[in-house]
Amino acid sequence: MSWQAIGIFDSGVGGLTVLREITKALPQEDTIYFGDTARVPYGTKSPETVARYSREITSFLVRRDIKLLVVACNTASAVALNGLKREFPIPVVGVIEPGARRAVAVTRSGRIGVIGTTGTIKSSAYTRAIKRLKPDACVLTRACPLFVPLAEEGWTDNQVAHLAAQAYLQELKDAGVDTLVLGCTHYPLLKTVIAETMGPGVTLVDSAEETARTVAEILAKKKLLRPAVENGNHHYYVSDIPAGFIRVGNRFLGGRLEDVYQVDLDNDGEEC
Amino acid sequence: MSWQAIGIFDSGVGGLTVLREITKALPQEDTIYFGDTARVPYGTKSPETVARYSREITSFLVRRDIKLLVVACNTASAVALNGLKREFPIPVVGVIEPGARRAVAVTRSGRIGVIGTTGTIKSSAYTRAIKRLKPDACVLTRACPLFVPLAEEGWTDNQVAHLAAQAYLQELKDAGVDTLVLGCTHYPLLKTVIAETMGPGVTLVDSAEETARTVAEILAKKKLLRPAVENGNHHYYVSDIPAGFIRVGNRFLGGRLEDVYQVDLDNDGEEC
Repeated sequence: MSWQAIGIFDSGVGGLTVLREITKALPQEDTIYFGDTARVPYGTKSPETVARYSREITSFLVRRDIKLLVVACNTASAVALNGLKREFPIPVVGVIEPGARRAVAVTRSGRIGVIGTTGTIKSSAYTRAIKRLKPDACVLTRACPLFVPLAEEGWTDNQVAHLAAQAYLQELKDAGVDTLVLGCTHYPLLKTVIAETMGPGVTLVDSAEETARTVAEILAKKKLLRPAVENGNHHYYVSDIPAGFIRVGNRFLGGRLEDVYQVDLDNDGEEC
Repeated sequence: MSWQAIGIFDSGVGGLTVLREITKALPQEDTIYFGDTARVPYGTKSPETVARYSREITSFLVRRDIKLLVVACNTASAVALNGLKREFPIPVVGVIEPGARRAVAVTRSGRIGVIGTTGTIKSSAYTRAIKRLKPDACVLTRACPLFVPLAEEGWTDNQVAHLAAQAYLQELKDAGVDTLVLGCTHYPLLKTVIAETMGPGVTLVDSAEETARTVAEILAKKKLLRPAVENGNHHYYVSDIPAGFIRVGNRFLGGRLEDVYQVDLDNDGEEC
């Protein structure tokens, strides 16, 4: 059992920030990552469509015998997590619950901001998760649709990024939040400009670390951890041709991306 | 024969600018529009993936017995047009050839700029089309990945849009182009800021009008025009739920969007 891999999926390359933290915390584990690069982004799509895509990808990963699934995409975590938990017989971990837990742990004033894609924000999933943990929290949210294309364009610290950050974040700043959840796996790339805009009094919460901790806990409890004898292997599948994924992904992981394969999910997830 | 509809497709809502011009030129014609809203955008995806999506959509429209297909998406026109022409037994019209024809007609200096998505610009399709018509033209191109999200966010005339336009267009301006092709159906929404950035000496070319003229010519030549007795009917199909398409589409067409249906192309194009 314990040599089964951890499955991780995202709409594209962003979930690699979560993979990085998992391999830091559990270097001995094998991983299989799926990036749905042919259908990215999920953030602007309807819950029904995102849920369907998530099911297709999970089926593909379950056929590869994973022992645990990480939904490393905030939009899919927001709209598809409960359905996946019901439908598949393995532990399923999203990024929203861990992000919410961390936010509640670090806030002093109880005023928490959350930014993400339109899909994530519309779902209110962070607000619900935070309120479950801390019913008196005041949660303020804002969709920032330009942040993903800015991160992918590499405009992470120029004047356009600063102005966009101001336009999106000024309201949250004025409202006096002391904690800001980066509710999209791309946003850590814009950390500098977001931190500068919000000022030194605001703590930024990146879900990736807390998600990795949750994965380690669950595997330990279920006695599914692989013994730490050697480093794990990492495989990557994408739905578009791998070139773009490899180029951007190397920025995320530091030049370690190998074994990237393209699959056609429309043909029952068989590799093409 | 002449009561068959004109089929039009785009990755999303942008192609409605082309539909609008076609219904202006040929108000008696029925149209069927397909917006691939579940898989939008195409501009960042590989040619192979865009070609596959284009074939799926064309099959869907041909099963609905269209008499002519308009590929109202620059990326798909750039990478999939020749394949579609070979594979399907109806006339297929893209937006690149008409845009190139217009640019060559209006340029005085022969220095022509082209802006579009990464996919369109990488394909060099505009450069080739312009050079075929005017071999001594000097064609300068630039991908502007932020323009589509800016248009969809409605940030079409604010400071972020102006700075982004400057960052993308300054080089073309400095190079002295006198004509700029808006090589993406979303870009007409940013016409004001693009025109201001380029200055009064530069003519902007929007392919939609010229594409409508081409459609009228082909239908006339093939004797497929519908007699102008009454106005045509317009049907819309989308691959994601219709709400977002209707909301943004009404801005494009002025509140006339009805009969929008969702289809699942993965299930052989049967309606769901």
